Amino acid sequence: MTCLVPAPVHVRPSPDDSFLITAETRVRVSQDASRIGDYLAETLQLATAADGEISLSLHGADPLVGDEGYQLSVTRTGIALKANTETGLFNGVQTLRQLLPVDGPRVVDGGEVLDHPRFAHRGAMLDVARHFFTVDDVRRFIDQIAQYKINVLHLHLTDDQGWRLEITGWPRLTEVGGATQVGGGPGGFYTQREFRDLVAYAASRHITLIPEIDLPGHSNAALTSYPELTCDGVAPPPFTSIGTATGFSSLCTDQESTYRFTEDVLGELAALTPGRHLHIGTDETHATPEEGYVKFVRRTLDIVRQHGKQAIGWHEILRAGPPEGTVPQFWSKTDDDPRVAEAAARGHRILLSPANKVYLDMKYTPDSPIGFKWAGYLDVRDVYDWDPGSYLDGVPEHAVLGVEAPLWSEHLEHRSHIDHMAFPRLPAIAELGWSPGQTHGWDDFRRRLATHAPRWTAQGIEFHPSTQIPWAI
Amino acid sequence: MTCLVPAPVHVRPSPDDSFLITAETRVRVSQDASRIGDYLAETLQLATAADGEISLSLHGADPLVGDEGYQLSVTRTGIALKANTETGLFNGVQTLRQLLPVDGPRVVDGGEVLDHPRFAHRGAMLDVARHFFTVDDVRRFIDQIAQYKINVLHLHLTDDQGWRLEITGWPRLTEVGGATQVGGGPGGFYTQREFRDLVAYAASRHITLIPEIDLPGHSNAALTSYPELTCDGVAPPPFTSIGTATGFSSLCTDQESTYRFTEDVLGELAALTPGRHLHIGTDETHATPEEGYVKFVRRTLDIVRQHGKQAIGWHEILRAGPPEGTVPQFWSKTDDDPRVAEAAARGHRILLSPANKVYLDMKYTPDSPIGFKWAGYLDVRDVYDWDPGSYLDGVPEHAVLGVEAPLWSEHLEHRSHIDHMAFPRLPAIAELGWSPGQTHGWDDFRRRLATHAPRWTAQGIEFHPSTQIPWAI
Repeated sequence: MTCLVPAPVHVRPSPDDSFLITAETRVRVSQDASRIGDYLAETLQLATAADGEISLSLHGADPLVGDEGYQLSVTRTGIALKANTETGLFNGVQTLRQLLPVDGPRVVDGGEVLDHPRFAHRGAMLDVARHFFTVDDVRRFIDQIAQYKINVLHLHLTDDQGWRLEITGWPRLTEVGGATQVGGGPGGFYTQREFRDLVAYAASRHITLIPEIDLPGHSNAALTSYPELTCDGVAPPPFTSIGTATGFSSLCTDQESTYRFTEDVLGELAALTPGRHLHIGTDETHATPEEGYVKFVRRTLDIVRQHGKQAIGWHEILRAGPPEGTVPQFWSKTDDDPRVAEAAARGHRILLSPANKVYLDMKYTPDSPIGFKWAGYLDVRDVYDWDPGSYLDGVPEHAVLGVEAPLWSEHLEHRSHIDHMAFPRLPAIAELGWSPGQTHGWDDFRRRLATHAPRWTAQGIEFHPSTQIPWAI
Repeated sequence: MTCLVPAPVHVRPSPDDSFLITAETRVRVSQDASRIGDYLAETLQLATAADGEISLSLHGADPLVGDEGYQLSVTRTGIALKANTETGLFNGVQTLRQLLPVDGPRVVDGGEVLDHPRFAHRGAMLDVARHFFTVDDVRRFIDQIAQYKINVLHLHLTDDQGWRLEITGWPRLTEVGGATQVGGGPGGFYTQREFRDLVAYAASRHITLIPEIDLPGHSNAALTSYPELTCDGVAPPPFTSIGTATGFSSLCTDQESTYRFTEDVLGELAALTPGRHLHIGTDETHATPEEGYVKFVRRTLDIVRQHGKQAIGWHEILRAGPPEGTVPQFWSKTDDDPRVAEAAARGHRILLSPANKVYLDMKYTPDSPIGFKWAGYLDVRDVYDWDPGSYLDGVPEHAVLGVEAPLWSEHLEHRSHIDHMAFPRLPAIAELGWSPGQTHGWDDFRRRLATHAPRWTAQGIEFHPSTQIPWAI
């Protein structure tokens, strides 16, 4: 019970009370918890039964654990998991999985856990625009992050180098804009059916998918597909390199054709997305006149609202004075935008993705094989050792919606590159989002994290064996 | 004692006789074994003493273990390692290291081992020409391979894309030819001093370094540096891509300037190399007229002999009818050259590097992020499950000098790519070179290999977690 990541709120280890799972062990499920019971039984390769040593229940959990927490008890005679919601049970199952040894007899550490998250939003972002990743790649990533109680997958679906989601009213977006990526490869895109399947797969792992259409900048793939989105009516050539000057492209904010496009795209996106949030980008719009930017963002926010959704935007969105409920995602490597604290004071919840702390596309060290370094080298301690609750002046803990780790894909040509950049850093960031501040401590964390390496190997994750972690003592 | 790679000749595990190493444990060394004793003490972070529980001795080993083998005995009261040579002791230390748990109390598995190698030459080849690797990278690779009782490091020092060794009489080889590599990067080279240091470092790990100057083909970097090596006197441009047509370059075999070059280069190389072998390439000479090829190779073999060395060449060298003692290195993916069996019948020892079995630059699977596939996908079982002693018709076990795994570097941009391609395949090939045929068995091997993953992680090796290996059961 002393190797869990993220660290639970309360743990009382009781080594003498370990429980041995055998082939005869049964998972007992009450009717309302049968879905998670089946999932647990499948995960542990056990049968379910009307009675059994491992029980799951949606009754009797301490109210303190809330909507996402759980209580877990392991004794010599059995395992009892209680929560108020299916999501709580699912999170408890992730804890239980970590209590099993990776190999050998299945002895589950004895003791008690009471647990619930610090922040509502514990996210990972995957950029499928710069390099395309297949449905299988994304499902694999979902399975990886679910283990660490991450509950949001933000998919960056469009950028200068590619458009990755079928929009039925605008077919050239994927026919043309989806056929490119960094380096000149063939790119790719998700059909609406594939996208719905991804949403459902994420939901089966209690993860909400937040799709991003980056507007009005980072839009070269759209402009290449439809010249009527440009001010001069001329489609620019495809862009397949890594920009030294980001923010060179913009939808034309002075034309109604742009707003028909935005309405159609976000309308279809809203219909595909059961979650409450749509991400509309709004970052690095150096090619958009300020007046046009403000007008565009306000109209786009209206469109999002009319489709029953709330908007998230990168923190530049605050320049447009967005309405209450809009979430600014802070990504700067310096705390230099006073609008963020002002927004927090007005009641906005801030999503924290400071580039110098959680950008997973940064190199670990100068010796890393891939990655950027503009926000610094980020080894495990760099991403772990900061406090989201007090990071930005004027943004106290209650104003923080959560923590999200973006993985931009300019340099990621293969899913093993996702593994390399995300592990072991993403579990560290997941702990910042879930665990209470009082459990924070580098020395204990690195010891716990070290024990996860054999789990990653068993799952085929090609993690980076950072020299900061005592993999063997 | 049941997790060793390579598998020893004889093992008698005795689990009740395990020995616990504590901070007070001492390494006792007889005077003639003090070097390996110091190495062992340093490895285990123990002190040496005139008396101690861990003893090393060059007396009393079973003669059966020969020049490279050892006997190891672990009881409750101590550990005794005996061999006839320092190399034997060194190999025993590698076994002992694997008997220690990677983590926790240092309990050494009890029992007896008697061990010696099947083949004399157990090699790994690293191509530092297509992409340059630094002295530190090569030292790291040496430490990795020594653990698996590999005793030869073949460095492929020159090719079309780069020349990596300082030759004092021909400075433009490194000034010009050393300044390029695949992809257009800055390349690099070893000074003679750095090269001597590498030779000495390898020797400290009981590894012989065999340098290769690839002649007369694969020589564009030399031709770019010195136009007098070409027949038309015109230096070709640097070549920094991956050839679709290999073998496009050739030294001019009809000019004396070529032979002055070969004499100078091989003369300096012989002076830098304490080992008995120089590797002279001789492969893929599609741009060399056959008559010129035979003449060139024969004169070059004379030069090697005059400097007191024996030559190794890729198996095409047999076209020149080389003298006894010359080693042909078989690399084809098909057994289609009758000269190899003929050479074995005449008494040549054959070095086996069949591309479809041991080329570490091949992808594991279609999903591998880097690598070629022209010789097939090579997952762990493909490189492991063949018998060097009966692989080539007409080349019986006694005619096999050994097994060598080449790692060509067209796609290796970073040392982590070496890790990815070499682990876990290189330990598998090392076992083919060391272990007797009767220990061979896939199911037992994959079980043993799985236990090595935490050792690799602890060493920072970014291995590929092949799905063929039961990392966790």
